[in-house]
Amino acid sequence: MAQTRLSRVDGEAGRLTLAGFELEDLAPKLGFEGVAALLWTDSVLAPAPLEAFVAELAGQRALEPVTVDLLRRAAAREVAPIDALRLGVASLSLGPVSGPRLLAAVPTIVATYDRLRRGAEPLAPDPALSLAADFLRMATGTAPTPGQTRALDTYLSTIADHGLNASTFTARVVASTRAELGPAIEAAIAALGGPLHGGAPGPALEALLELREQPGDLEANTRTWATAQLAAGERIMGFGHRVYRTRDPRADVLGAAAAQLLAGTGLYEDAQIHERAVLEVLRAHKPGRVLATNVEFYTALLLHGLGFEPAVFTSIFAIGRTAGWIAHYEEQQREGRLIRPRAAYVGARGRTLC
Amino acid sequence: MAQTRLSRVDGEAGRLTLAGFELEDLAPKLGFEGVAALLWTDSVLAPAPLEAFVAELAGQRALEPVTVDLLRRAAAREVAPIDALRLGVASLSLGPVSGPRLLAAVPTIVATYDRLRRGAEPLAPDPALSLAADFLRMATGTAPTPGQTRALDTYLSTIADHGLNASTFTARVVASTRAELGPAIEAAIAALGGPLHGGAPGPALEALLELREQPGDLEANTRTWATAQLAAGERIMGFGHRVYRTRDPRADVLGAAAAQLLAGTGLYEDAQIHERAVLEVLRAHKPGRVLATNVEFYTALLLHGLGFEPAVFTSIFAIGRTAGWIAHYEEQQREGRLIRPRAAYVGARGRTLC
Repeated sequence: MAQTRLSRVDGEAGRLTLAGFELEDLAPKLGFEGVAALLWTDSVLAPAPLEAFVAELAGQRALEPVTVDLLRRAAAREVAPIDALRLGVASLSLGPVSGPRLLAAVPTIVATYDRLRRGAEPLAPDPALSLAADFLRMATGTAPTPGQTRALDTYLSTIADHGLNASTFTARVVASTRAELGPAIEAAIAALGGPLHGGAPGPALEALLELREQPGDLEANTRTWATAQLAAGERIMGFGHRVYRTRDPRADVLGAAAAQLLAGTGLYEDAQIHERAVLEVLRAHKPGRVLATNVEFYTALLLHGLGFEPAVFTSIFAIGRTAGWIAHYEEQQREGRLIRPRAAYVGARGRTLC
Repeated sequence: MAQTRLSRVDGEAGRLTLAGFELEDLAPKLGFEGVAALLWTDSVLAPAPLEAFVAELAGQRALEPVTVDLLRRAAAREVAPIDALRLGVASLSLGPVSGPRLLAAVPTIVATYDRLRRGAEPLAPDPALSLAADFLRMATGTAPTPGQTRALDTYLSTIADHGLNASTFTARVVASTRAELGPAIEAAIAALGGPLHGGAPGPALEALLELREQPGDLEANTRTWATAQLAAGERIMGFGHRVYRTRDPRADVLGAAAAQLLAGTGLYEDAQIHERAVLEVLRAHKPGRVLATNVEFYTALLLHGLGFEPAVFTSIFAIGRTAGWIAHYEEQQREGRLIRPRAAYVGARGRTLC
């Protein structure tokens, strides 16, 4: 079995630790750059080295014209944001690529493409800002509030690493051939682009937003909708996880961040009504099984609250997960064995050309 | 364990079958497009459908200007050919991507970049030619002889598929997320770019070419060199394989193709002298172990005989392997389960921020 020192996903207990720290202890306190440094060095950086690391990243945010040109062409063809990100990351390999360069440039690519696809011109980075703040500024065109920056920073920290999911495992398989870092991250983004991996935050939100628009009581409407979904054999996005058998610890952290961000808008309160109604319907449907709210539900709420469209949610997820992918790449390189599983052959035998 | 109906690698017996056919029966007879069709459909196409399939591929060879522009920029920065191929394949996603489109466009990308990096202008494809013939024409600038086309066609057929190697497994992990085909092949190329996977054909040849230039007897020089390599704890590239415990069946097919191609040049005869001398040194060094010539040695000889530089060998390998990657992508999509291994956590526990 694969081994890692990076994150520990304890599905039975509903716990996630990063480098030995409980997620709940880490995400709001350390800052995203601090979490990335922890994953890369196994150390909590002291204030001065952390400041230097933040500045090192900030100085590497700007994109070359070739990358912006490519994103412009992608926008003209209405390429999906996650595909544009992969293309943008591929073009980074025309220059020197390192962990800091990738972690710094991915948010710029995502923000640049989000503007281009909405018909706006890209904005240059501001190295005086933190990664989360500058990403928000580059994407939206206005300086974020401290609350908005804190919400996004908590989100990025919360999803920075999560065991050997499909994209992280892809990065490790590529790393195991001693390929360069850039191609490994590009391959991870390829895996994240698949709907079974990176595709659910959008639908989790859309149901809530549509139900809010319906006349009548949100709780009753949610029950009716959820019951019909289950009767039709459909999954309800945002609930349940293939690993966590109890609560997803990330949902708690993101729920608290969303509550702060959305205070006074009514949306967080509606989300709670929706969540409770869905959970009750799910429990009645499968009495023996614990089906809790997962990370996607509060991801969607939080990113929507920051003004992003569902189409770009997976790309924003990639900004945070890039920290983990890079850490796994380095860990796999140190470990050093080629990942090449044996396959059982189950096809035809003994055929001959006549 | 993963299952496949595509190829069966029997390392103990030194056998490789594709869709139930022995490689030796298949590679020289069916033609590369026929081998690709076999992997994709599990059927040997009759002459008329095969002709239609060849024409379908031939009509999709041309690159868009955006791809050629990118390759030009890559050449200006002296990007490695395999990295340029990945970038070129990434840019294909700006248009519609299908199995035939990818299999048709990859050779054009490789040929275009091989010209650009040598300072020559790219040539447009000629849909009247087979894939192997047109690739040779686009790369070298002259119409290939039938013998050259046959040699390359045999090479591409021989390496079209080979179980779950690291790049094929990468394509399947990406496919398992239900990602599109383009990103999966891009990720496979990322894995192939790693020296542990796609990196040995060049060095396997370089030793032979250098030893040929030395004064004195090639056989004696090879023995001296091989003995020194082993004494220094170095691997001898081109010999031994992590799966095959006896001969690599692909080496036989490629050896025969190389013998035909190089007839009269003296190089094939020198390669045989070199091969025998290395094998004797290896057997004396590890008496109990069977260490046979592997696919890389004759790959290098054959591609060198066709006029290619070692720097481009891995990209030409990718042309053939694209057929297998696409077949595995489709097989994985049909099978449908997300590949997400559990990891054992071996890091710190119970750390807290103070």
